[in-house]
Amino acid sequence: MNESSLQPIIFEDGLLRLLDQRALPGALHWIACRSAEQTATAITDMVVRGAPAIGIAAAYGLALTVWSGEDRDSAERRLRLSRPTAVNLGASLDRLRGLPTDALPTAARALHAEDLQINLALGAAGAPLLSGGVLTVCNTGALATGGHGTALGVVRSARAAGQAVHVYALETRPYLQGARLTAFECAQDGIPHTLLTDGMAGALMASGRVQQVIVGCDRVAANGDTANKIGTYGLAVLARAHGLPFYVAMPTSTLDRACPSGEAIPIEARPDDELRRIGGQLICPAHSPVWNPSFDRTPAGLITAWVTERGVWRLPFPSDPAA
Amino acid sequence: MNESSLQPIIFEDGLLRLLDQRALPGALHWIACRSAEQTATAITDMVVRGAPAIGIAAAYGLALTVWSGEDRDSAERRLRLSRPTAVNLGASLDRLRGLPTDALPTAARALHAEDLQINLALGAAGAPLLSGGVLTVCNTGALATGGHGTALGVVRSARAAGQAVHVYALETRPYLQGARLTAFECAQDGIPHTLLTDGMAGALMASGRVQQVIVGCDRVAANGDTANKIGTYGLAVLARAHGLPFYVAMPTSTLDRACPSGEAIPIEARPDDELRRIGGQLICPAHSPVWNPSFDRTPAGLITAWVTERGVWRLPFPSDPAA
Repeated sequence: MNESSLQPIIFEDGLLRLLDQRALPGALHWIACRSAEQTATAITDMVVRGAPAIGIAAAYGLALTVWSGEDRDSAERRLRLSRPTAVNLGASLDRLRGLPTDALPTAARALHAEDLQINLALGAAGAPLLSGGVLTVCNTGALATGGHGTALGVVRSARAAGQAVHVYALETRPYLQGARLTAFECAQDGIPHTLLTDGMAGALMASGRVQQVIVGCDRVAANGDTANKIGTYGLAVLARAHGLPFYVAMPTSTLDRACPSGEAIPIEARPDDELRRIGGQLICPAHSPVWNPSFDRTPAGLITAWVTERGVWRLPFPSDPAA
Repeated sequence: MNESSLQPIIFEDGLLRLLDQRALPGALHWIACRSAEQTATAITDMVVRGAPAIGIAAAYGLALTVWSGEDRDSAERRLRLSRPTAVNLGASLDRLRGLPTDALPTAARALHAEDLQINLALGAAGAPLLSGGVLTVCNTGALATGGHGTALGVVRSARAAGQAVHVYALETRPYLQGARLTAFECAQDGIPHTLLTDGMAGALMASGRVQQVIVGCDRVAANGDTANKIGTYGLAVLARAHGLPFYVAMPTSTLDRACPSGEAIPIEARPDDELRRIGGQLICPAHSPVWNPSFDRTPAGLITAWVTERGVWRLPFPSDPAA
């Protein structure tokens, strides 16, 4: 299989090691978590990010209660509140509910392995859609998931199938996941790529260099409205204006069937200084007011298709086989 | 009048002092130029930027040949090639052609004073168009011009007329002119403002916070196609999709009547490392390929009106009174 060699989440008995994604690509630095509390803090502080990876880390965090002796209920509550937008976080914790505590480590490992298998199936389903230049935002690769990736996983699968694709990675301010993480994964795996700033997306499309856009998602409502990294909505408007298909890579776990539409998806506001500073360095007057939503909502009508591990979906979504 | 107190270009006999805009807002650092050669280097290195300011600096640079003893023709050629996109650079130098060399300092000073008057007239013409939230990109204020500003000058004039306006400033990667310069000018002059990343423009429009977009320009073709800071084109597409007016603040000196359409406007590609590094710090793998055009082209059809010192223009443009 075409898994990436990057292993950003490593679990051993009593110890969860998270690759500190804030330090990439400059340094490979690991954060050791020995409790659910430490894991929740690491999620809030974005040591680990990406909706699937957050779900996996939270499951391991809960499993750490076996060794830490933390109260399981309060540990679960603490983890559940560590980030607000991604549906995977709550869904992972829901799946561990009712299990005996000593079964949590095995269940968390199974959830991690399952995520990788889902990504591989999703990648295989989406690969035939791609050709030529592929514009993407944020990081949706091995660093954001249990391995392989979602949107970037589709690119990996397309390359494994011998297709010629070139990734155009938006740097994704304020957190620079595109520059720091996607370009890093592409460089590591030899995926042809070009980095550009977020404001260049329109000019890139007008230049004819990209033939489609593919992005990940943090939560998809039942009507297809999609919350994803800030900037996604603007890309969808631009793609429509240029006649380009706009795909969302969506593990079905990210579909929140209880959420009727995009307006019901909570959007996290990140701290002001995450926008005002880059690498600790102030880029504007210290007290200039900022607007710093971490995600935006793309209406379903701007989305061509959702690529899932169960195939390429269009609206209306198939019903839940587990229901 | 409502001029800003910022004086980024100061000329004395034999000495041109340029406020180093690369160091703002962290430090007020001045670069001393005693020759056309030094001035051209300062323009290329973006010590001074903004189409009108570049034109003024180039005129003073040529005037420095009075003291430096440089060959006037080669000095003019060197200055003319220091940046490729802005039309003001060549236009300023054209206006000094044929003057005796000892008349250059006075002529350059007149050109500087005239630019300020043009900005004030442009601001007065455009002010009635604005209300509520005003989205803008890059820096088009006193730092980009002979004083007051073009797009930001319209905001200054609107405020002087008692209108309630709020600036939403896109940070404008890779050079961060919005964060470093526009937010700085707004903070200095008490203009209500909010800073956001370039990728947030679409979500901002969808949120209802902005009622119009106004931008500057580096060159406008005879058919109205407009070259401006990279990201402008995407904003124009987004504004159209949200039914928002999209204005270009255009001193008529920026209109290149000899240029038939946008395709004929040269677009400068800036060095890769200006995108790969922020404040010297690498934000991506050192060898990741980048795409770094400094400007893009917005088709005239996406532009509501051009605000000039001679009034608010729509297509077709009035003929040249000087012709």
